Amino acid sequence: MLTDTEEKLIKYARNPRIGPHITVIGGGTGLSTLLRGLKLYTHNLTAIVTVADNGGSSGMLREDMGMLPPGDIRNCILALADTEPLLSDLFHYRFHEGRLSGQSFGNLFIAAMNSVCGNFYEAIINVSKVLAVKGRVLPVSLQDVNISAMLSDGTMIIGESEIGDRPRPESSDIVDIFMQPADALPMPEAVDAIKKAELLVLGPGSLYTSIIPNLLFPEICQAIESSRAPTVYVGNIMTQPAETIDYDTTRHIEAILRHMYRSCDCKKPIDYCVVNNAWIDEELIERYHLQSAIPVTTDRDRIIELGIELIEGPLACVHDGKIRHDHTILARTVISLLDNLEQDVRSKGNG
Amino acid sequence: MLTDTEEKLIKYARNPRIGPHITVIGGGTGLSTLLRGLKLYTHNLTAIVTVADNGGSSGMLREDMGMLPPGDIRNCILALADTEPLLSDLFHYRFHEGRLSGQSFGNLFIAAMNSVCGNFYEAIINVSKVLAVKGRVLPVSLQDVNISAMLSDGTMIIGESEIGDRPRPESSDIVDIFMQPADALPMPEAVDAIKKAELLVLGPGSLYTSIIPNLLFPEICQAIESSRAPTVYVGNIMTQPAETIDYDTTRHIEAILRHMYRSCDCKKPIDYCVVNNAWIDEELIERYHLQSAIPVTTDRDRIIELGIELIEGPLACVHDGKIRHDHTILARTVISLLDNLEQDVRSKGNG
Repeated sequence: MLTDTEEKLIKYARNPRIGPHITVIGGGTGLSTLLRGLKLYTHNLTAIVTVADNGGSSGMLREDMGMLPPGDIRNCILALADTEPLLSDLFHYRFHEGRLSGQSFGNLFIAAMNSVCGNFYEAIINVSKVLAVKGRVLPVSLQDVNISAMLSDGTMIIGESEIGDRPRPESSDIVDIFMQPADALPMPEAVDAIKKAELLVLGPGSLYTSIIPNLLFPEICQAIESSRAPTVYVGNIMTQPAETIDYDTTRHIEAILRHMYRSCDCKKPIDYCVVNNAWIDEELIERYHLQSAIPVTTDRDRIIELGIELIEGPLACVHDGKIRHDHTILARTVISLLDNLEQDVRSKGNG
Repeated sequence: MLTDTEEKLIKYARNPRIGPHITVIGGGTGLSTLLRGLKLYTHNLTAIVTVADNGGSSGMLREDMGMLPPGDIRNCILALADTEPLLSDLFHYRFHEGRLSGQSFGNLFIAAMNSVCGNFYEAIINVSKVLAVKGRVLPVSLQDVNISAMLSDGTMIIGESEIGDRPRPESSDIVDIFMQPADALPMPEAVDAIKKAELLVLGPGSLYTSIIPNLLFPEICQAIESSRAPTVYVGNIMTQPAETIDYDTTRHIEAILRHMYRSCDCKKPIDYCVVNNAWIDEELIERYHLQSAIPVTTDRDRIIELGIELIEGPLACVHDGKIRHDHTILARTVISLLDNLEQDVRSKGNG
């Protein structure tokens, strides 16, 4: 006998075109992993991705012939592609011959689209239209936005990459993230996607450089607050030395809620928190520890006190020697939440 | 009151994913026009396109970094794209900066895919997979095929472009088209697409260089013969000096039937013939006449004698000073045939 949830998962997997409307907010490898899994169950997917990536040390933002998209957006587009490994191989392909030597096809693609569309962000949106991708990837804003971080010792760090790349901090935790210009506007399509969602997902992703930058737009938080969709936070598996050293799951959530409140007095609660409970290889943990990253711990009682339902699952896997979310298990877990909720609503309606 | 056909057209236009399975065989501008119209009614479309394009005088087949697809295939892919004008602009975009100067993006796309896939034809198939196109474009064969023409004066002309580009012939009509190697095999997917079709469409396109080269494969003709789908021939609006000077519609059809019969004793009849009856501007006709091209005439009685139902419609329009099929009217006419036939079957079933 299949449970209701299993039946729904099978129904969606058979025909993802009729799958639920899910909007995910974040960035980084974690987010593209989630999208890679979710596209199996629904094509009604919108990924809202921060655009505060100033390139910085990676020096990737501008190349020979045009602008490159922030890597996050490109990775999300690839994750949503029907023909993912093929498109990924194509994007990463570098020409070896003569004049084109060293150019990656992905860069040429964006550069050509940039020239055809006349502006970078329209180019990004059109790249996913032209490719066979399920769902949409939207930059949170069309404006040139930068972020800065206020540390606990009073220092300000300016620039996303400077925040994310700084070496292991001593006693200077990040306290607040700000956006310049402070009155930058989000994309109306991103706001709409939040309003229309049946499920809102925050993360996984870098707390201060991928998730929170999206929440610095009051209009985004207002849309989250006015939405009737349940909100899910997907916790990171490992801490990040530059951002979340010694953070447990609760501290991640509190930082999100604090920034949402600061943004527009938003008091929308987080309904679910999805965290990993799979065992991780000790040797790998050791290796991460050398870089000041440890598994994120979860204080179950604190989560319950916050009124959040905690969902634990064997989400961690190892990929290329790195600890990652397993995309199928993560997606199944997230989609199942929606089903459970529907059942809740139904049983309340019947009761 | 809407007729049954109109209702069906509306139903398909609302949800082309459930549209009928249509396989079209041909090449050239005419075929891409037909596809541009048909994709509005069905996504279950397969275009089988000749690959005998040896480039020749146009010298387009090979460029700096790799092979180019025959222009026909590329145009069909563009015609099937969801975002057609945008993708077309992108494919035709030429880089102006430094090292890339003069390269069209479309060429770079194929070249990169060619390198990733390791062979040219897989690259072609994968280009349409990666792009948001409705339906498939299949080269009729993965083999390196050439065609030659036997003329009425006994001369042989070797090469597709040599046949299509020859100047106004005097008294030397094309009698037969041959393929080298004679035992080349078609793509199994092309054969399957014919077997599974609910409607088979031949043309529009160059008779001897676009339509007939596909029919030189016995397996293709056997599939057409074994198919229960009705076969439609869409007639060209104007004659082509190098191929069909002074041809009327009947002579076009007879050439097709003759080559199908030679290929595998195929006796599958053509069920419908769709021709233009719209008035064409006299001045434009004059201009075409200077290049020995005249409107194709239709001997209605002869068509009926051949057991073919003649469908006439205002198919001609003028685009960039050239006489073309109107893509919406042509597609509606072709799709309606299928509906009529369903009604025939239904009324026979009821009778």
